[in-house]
Amino acid sequence: MLIREATAADWPQIWPFLHTIVAAGDTFTWDRDITEADARAMWMKEAPGRTFVAVDEDGTVLGTAETHRNQMGGGSHVANAGFMVDPRHTGRGVARALCARVLEQARTDGYRSMQFNAVVETNHRAVALWQSLGFEVLTTVPEAFQHPDKGYVGLLVMYRRL
Amino acid sequence: MLIREATAADWPQIWPFLHTIVAAGDTFTWDRDITEADARAMWMKEAPGRTFVAVDEDGTVLGTAETHRNQMGGGSHVANAGFMVDPRHTGRGVARALCARVLEQARTDGYRSMQFNAVVETNHRAVALWQSLGFEVLTTVPEAFQHPDKGYVGLLVMYRRL
Repeated sequence: MLIREATAADWPQIWPFLHTIVAAGDTFTWDRDITEADARAMWMKEAPGRTFVAVDEDGTVLGTAETHRNQMGGGSHVANAGFMVDPRHTGRGVARALCARVLEQARTDGYRSMQFNAVVETNHRAVALWQSLGFEVLTTVPEAFQHPDKGYVGLLVMYRRL
Repeated sequence: MLIREATAADWPQIWPFLHTIVAAGDTFTWDRDITEADARAMWMKEAPGRTFVAVDEDGTVLGTAETHRNQMGGGSHVANAGFMVDPRHTGRGVARALCARVLEQARTDGYRSMQFNAVVETNHRAVALWQSLGFEVLTTVPEAFQHPDKGYVGLLVMYRRL
């Protein structure tokens, strides 16, 4: 598996699984019926944001990550990031490899910490992965996410120093 | 003092004090050198967001507020809001009146709670005001804001049910 910065040519491989994940509505606070154009604008970041892909030996995109400033101005030294792995390729360490790269890049880019604002508390696999990578839960915003099956569940604010 | 929804005609009165507040860089996580066009796009919300002004008897804009969805999709039932009061008109209850209106409107619009993501911890007056209006501090993100005089200080995540 290779992790590299994404190019415009990667989008046609990203959109099908990103669309599946967003349409499911159980892990991302995105509108489930988002258009491809809006999704592309949100995911394929302009500098200083970055977008990465994890690709297999044959060039198949297995997953993707994006990172950007969590706030502007006086909050610009805190990074944020998002991760999506093609459901057909979970269980291979794709998210872990993407997150390791994003953390390394954020340090290189001068960020001092990384914050996730809205990790769905029922997304246990993601929460456990981020914790294993050094993130702690700062708080759970109660009932901040309407899960399609489980009703109102919490959103975790997670954080780690870089 | 009257609180009403803002119109495009209010912007010329909003921009001078909004610019002063943002350029000071000690309370908002906005780029201090933001252009007027970008500031206007960020503050004068399109639906379902809303922007309000507090105006004096003679039509002077004393302060302004904006409110919007804190997240999209499954997080759309949590509102966020921002408040700016002209420094020449502080101490008159403008922020409190604006916040009361924003809370009432958010309930009417069907939001279930309101969350602030980035209240600068040294902005003691704002923190005390939000607490007096029922907001609690869920967590402080450590060193998440670079204050122009005080160095790295925390950003509070504040929350209340509606």
